[in-house]
Amino acid sequence: MKPVRVGLLGLGTVGTGVVRIVEGNQEDLSSQVGSPIIISKIAVKNSDKSRDIYIDPAILTEDPWDVIRDPEIDVIVEVMGGVEQTKAYILEALEQGKHIITANKDLMALYGSEILAKAQEKQCDVFYEASVAGGIPIIRTLIEGFSSDRILKIMGIVNGTTNFILTKMSKEGASYDDVLQEAQELGYAESDPTSDVEGLDAARKMAILGTLGFRTNVELKDVSVRGISQVTKEDIAYAKRLGYEMKLLGIADRDDEHISISVQPTMVRRSHPIASVNGVYNAVYVYGEAVGETMFYGAGAGAMPTATSVVADLVAAIKNLKLGVNGLKAIVPYKQKKLKDDEQIKYKNFILLHVDDKAGVLAQITQAFAQFDVSLESVVQQPNEHNPYAEIIIVTHDASKASMNKVLEHFEGLAVIRTIKSVYRVEG
Amino acid sequence: MKPVRVGLLGLGTVGTGVVRIVEGNQEDLSSQVGSPIIISKIAVKNSDKSRDIYIDPAILTEDPWDVIRDPEIDVIVEVMGGVEQTKAYILEALEQGKHIITANKDLMALYGSEILAKAQEKQCDVFYEASVAGGIPIIRTLIEGFSSDRILKIMGIVNGTTNFILTKMSKEGASYDDVLQEAQELGYAESDPTSDVEGLDAARKMAILGTLGFRTNVELKDVSVRGISQVTKEDIAYAKRLGYEMKLLGIADRDDEHISISVQPTMVRRSHPIASVNGVYNAVYVYGEAVGETMFYGAGAGAMPTATSVVADLVAAIKNLKLGVNGLKAIVPYKQKKLKDDEQIKYKNFILLHVDDKAGVLAQITQAFAQFDVSLESVVQQPNEHNPYAEIIIVTHDASKASMNKVLEHFEGLAVIRTIKSVYRVEG
Repeated sequence: MKPVRVGLLGLGTVGTGVVRIVEGNQEDLSSQVGSPIIISKIAVKNSDKSRDIYIDPAILTEDPWDVIRDPEIDVIVEVMGGVEQTKAYILEALEQGKHIITANKDLMALYGSEILAKAQEKQCDVFYEASVAGGIPIIRTLIEGFSSDRILKIMGIVNGTTNFILTKMSKEGASYDDVLQEAQELGYAESDPTSDVEGLDAARKMAILGTLGFRTNVELKDVSVRGISQVTKEDIAYAKRLGYEMKLLGIADRDDEHISISVQPTMVRRSHPIASVNGVYNAVYVYGEAVGETMFYGAGAGAMPTATSVVADLVAAIKNLKLGVNGLKAIVPYKQKKLKDDEQIKYKNFILLHVDDKAGVLAQITQAFAQFDVSLESVVQQPNEHNPYAEIIIVTHDASKASMNKVLEHFEGLAVIRTIKSVYRVEG
Repeated sequence: MKPVRVGLLGLGTVGTGVVRIVEGNQEDLSSQVGSPIIISKIAVKNSDKSRDIYIDPAILTEDPWDVIRDPEIDVIVEVMGGVEQTKAYILEALEQGKHIITANKDLMALYGSEILAKAQEKQCDVFYEASVAGGIPIIRTLIEGFSSDRILKIMGIVNGTTNFILTKMSKEGASYDDVLQEAQELGYAESDPTSDVEGLDAARKMAILGTLGFRTNVELKDVSVRGISQVTKEDIAYAKRLGYEMKLLGIADRDDEHISISVQPTMVRRSHPIASVNGVYNAVYVYGEAVGETMFYGAGAGAMPTATSVVADLVAAIKNLKLGVNGLKAIVPYKQKKLKDDEQIKYKNFILLHVDDKAGVLAQITQAFAQFDVSLESVVQQPNEHNPYAEIIIVTHDASKASMNKVLEHFEGLAVIRTIKSVYRVEG
């Protein structure tokens, strides 16, 4: 039977994984799609570079346009990364009627709607399972598995680097800087870790998950983002004492039709299934109106897990190709986006204050919460042995972000409060 | 646009859930499939029965054939249960060119291959996501999400009743009989609980998962089954002391092309993600050659979670209907089945022995393991304060089932061993 020809843009770790799987599982893959799958051209930066796997030099090119404009190629797998130039490649490939598999979350978070619109116009598939949570098939789960349900909340540990750092800080009582350095040495964090540790990578993934889960166009600018670089080992120790684990959580939720999406270090109650997701693993917790609590766990990165998702998408695109239905099953976000304002965004908060150690302080503080309509779940005041101030640890009930901002602003002007040491969202 | 007409067989809790979702989420569902979805006929046992939801009496019938032979109906949703008669309904519906959504694990485990063959002949869809692990979309995950990978191991907590019982025994130190009675009172266990507690329900689900995961025809008779009715609170206490949780696990694994599938109470190391799946929740752990460890967690039963999966299947079948590709994407198990023999089936074992409390006993016992080539991970001998015998607790390394059987047979003839108190598989 006539083989299906696939062009690969990029031959780094994920690209190499794709080649390994397509070659290693060829019999199984071709039995599923009904014909052999051949990777017939690969764009690389340097075609003379030595590689871990054997690649016929004749199929390598240093010019991506060679791949994109090859009339024999039906499907393009993009694993080269990058945004602006890569977008140009993808749009031209779609123009040529080629189907796209990409692992590129930056591209999809920034230009997903433009790319998907072009795909629809050209009746092409664009699949991007590998762009969120590596080997976890969360995108098809949201599109197909929960097509029937109203998803109310998605919480994700979708960045392995920060989960590795927070897990290590929690288990070893180590400081952020020390663990970051270790993560960099192990290759789990980049030499410039900003995108990971400041939550930007997670925010991009949450924009994708929010778009799919709520069927509206979530953009990166809709995601409020706070990273983990200010999380101290003391904060984590407090979290643990209160029965929480500190996690960088992406949280997308909706009430009626209003949604909010955020990424922030969050104290998660230990009994919640996502609290025990450790190390570089990822997990996405989905709460649906009908299905209730579900969670999907697995490797969030790494060559082979990511390549698993890429090749699963490739199989899906080729099946559609054989049936002549590419591009006809695309989910188009159809709901008007309504973002929650700060009055509508509600969650529990942990607050750690350093205050003067004298009579009446606690009364002033609790009064401020009452004044702005924030009710409290627990308040603990304790003297700090080594310092001339007392610590007050407060956990609120669900409170609006607007009210909490007013409380914190009020605290800035209270003389008895020396420092607002930490404020964290609390879940579970 | 012309609505799609759906016939429902059964209007129990799941059927009612299906009606609720189809009506409640109609706008969202019809925007996905491109036309309204109407449940136009429902077969019930008693059409005069009062119900939780309003159903137009005109669409009720007490004769399933009315639904199956209605020429206006495109898709049949079977949530009535039963095997032999239900199979006849389904085969006739397929004969009439109707697509089938079923939540019936018994039917699919026993007659899945016959039904899927008929579906292929008539180019019809048969989807059965709800038959395994309720609201968890594990079937599409195995078929689509991991289409690219070689799955090496599947471990499932796929029966909520037994997980509820074992969780309760573990947390409260309660006995099997007491907890079973409580589960029956709460409606989590049937008055005749045999199918659940003896592992048959889990075995049926594992036959389905094994078929999909290994792409070969696993039949119910291929699954070795042991239930939880002999698990004592003492066994669970031992498990916990050693760092394990007792779970009824379905385990399907393969080496090369040889597979084995079993269901048995298993001691799972507490650090394994499946060990912390508690209560009526289900989870399926999948280990793939490329993707590594993954786990999928959620409600395994209940009206709304199960109905979520049924309606997601319905959406998929209707999308295919609109595209004219029903029945063309069915996965046909194509590999010849090769079952492992007892020499090839290998795992760790926990063994609890009551032995004479005298010199040389431990030597005799450890010698027996050595003789049959079973190496040991740990051995603890302890006097039992209340009894005139000693206890020996052994955990083996991976050992073949054949060797373990020889060891246990040899123990039967050893005078110093009073009782082989417990033997469990160990995982994690």
